[in-house]
Amino acid sequence: MEKLVLIKVGGKIVEEEETLRRLLSDFAAIEGYKVLVHGGGRSATKLAAQLGIECKMVNGRRITDAETLKVVTMVYGGLVNKNIVAGLQALGVNALGLTGADMNLMRSDKRPVKEVDYGFVGDVKEVNADLLATLIHQGIVPVLAPLTHDKQGHMLNTNADTIAGEAAKALARHFEVTLMFCFEKKGVLRDERDDESVIPEIDRSAFKEYVEQGIIQGGMIPKLENAYQAIDAGVKQVIITQATEIHQGKGTRVF
Amino acid sequence: MEKLVLIKVGGKIVEEEETLRRLLSDFAAIEGYKVLVHGGGRSATKLAAQLGIECKMVNGRRITDAETLKVVTMVYGGLVNKNIVAGLQALGVNALGLTGADMNLMRSDKRPVKEVDYGFVGDVKEVNADLLATLIHQGIVPVLAPLTHDKQGHMLNTNADTIAGEAAKALARHFEVTLMFCFEKKGVLRDERDDESVIPEIDRSAFKEYVEQGIIQGGMIPKLENAYQAIDAGVKQVIITQATEIHQGKGTRVF
Repeated sequence: MEKLVLIKVGGKIVEEEETLRRLLSDFAAIEGYKVLVHGGGRSATKLAAQLGIECKMVNGRRITDAETLKVVTMVYGGLVNKNIVAGLQALGVNALGLTGADMNLMRSDKRPVKEVDYGFVGDVKEVNADLLATLIHQGIVPVLAPLTHDKQGHMLNTNADTIAGEAAKALARHFEVTLMFCFEKKGVLRDERDDESVIPEIDRSAFKEYVEQGIIQGGMIPKLENAYQAIDAGVKQVIITQATEIHQGKGTRVF
Repeated sequence: MEKLVLIKVGGKIVEEEETLRRLLSDFAAIEGYKVLVHGGGRSATKLAAQLGIECKMVNGRRITDAETLKVVTMVYGGLVNKNIVAGLQALGVNALGLTGADMNLMRSDKRPVKEVDYGFVGDVKEVNADLLATLIHQGIVPVLAPLTHDKQGHMLNTNADTIAGEAAKALARHFEVTLMFCFEKKGVLRDERDDESVIPEIDRSAFKEYVEQGIIQGGMIPKLENAYQAIDAGVKQVIITQATEIHQGKGTRVF
């Protein structure tokens, strides 16, 4: 199978002109098949504030009421997505912006109300990546916004990490997929206070040991558990790195 | 060649829930290959007002300054487009929302400043519809937002009638295209005061006569001139009708 790299970048990178320009230039320089998944939370929060819509967060997750859904549909699907697409086109990358509704790429169910009512948030149930794979083979570079739909006429807000993981798993049937998560650090760190203490590789037994030793802890544990879940579902490897390093092959390789 | 119908609907229809639902249901019922082009001006004006951005119009055309460009990118490319796509997916139509930046579908030049500075408005220079035609043959139904890009990293605001005409002309190399413009009347009227006085067919010689007799006048003249320009460029026929009539084959047929 041919190789494909799927890169997820958070909102901060794509929402500031300087960091976006560098990201797009680094992304454009990557050879072969590729996909970009973006966030956009900061712009959504900013627009919501300008419109007098209160931003409610629970455990770091946005509560998406009807008005907030409109905001994220505009910001993620319109402003941020098209800005990236136009930027990539200028660099000769034949980008195509997509949400989960487009070509029925990702169908989700509105999250059931338990302790928390997250509102119009979708949990992915079905990914249709066959046509996407055909387009990628034809030279198209998909740019995925963190939005899905319920196949009943409604858009739903969906976490960008989830979009990246689900897209990577579905594309693993067509490509040898490397899933790259960009975050604020250079990789998984051996010592949180030392930004240069990147662990270059983590396999399953090492992961277990690092957790037992308390070297890997907190929010990095679910991140790595998700990585292994993607690998179990056919993704070749997961790389955790910084947005400025995507072209250098640095960061932590999880396999 | 196989038939394709490309339908352009204005903002009013797609921005109100009731009329949108009927439009999508009528559109879904149309058999064969199809494309939808939409406006969204009213929602853009509304959002701009909420954000305190002044809406400047000259000769019925929006002046698109940098802030307004953000608004139309969000509203046309995000809110309105994805709402339509999700609505069509619910009806079993495999819709794909696109701007001119996506797959480099429509490249435009920023309109030169003459008497009026229209701002970030694009005049279409190049349409790449080959991949679009392939997707349509695979069952995809494109939904086009009135946005283009300059291939230098910027989105540009572009009139929806222009998007429809340019897309129809480019697709005419792959399909026998019927271009349908929906507006507020049932068709071209013989008597402006009588909504039922629809002229069923207008060929070139009839058009000339109607204009000479003063039956066709005002804004309808450039509309029909644009229709004949599309026909000259290979479009089979143009139908001018009301959004509620798209499924009945009524309205005025221009050929």
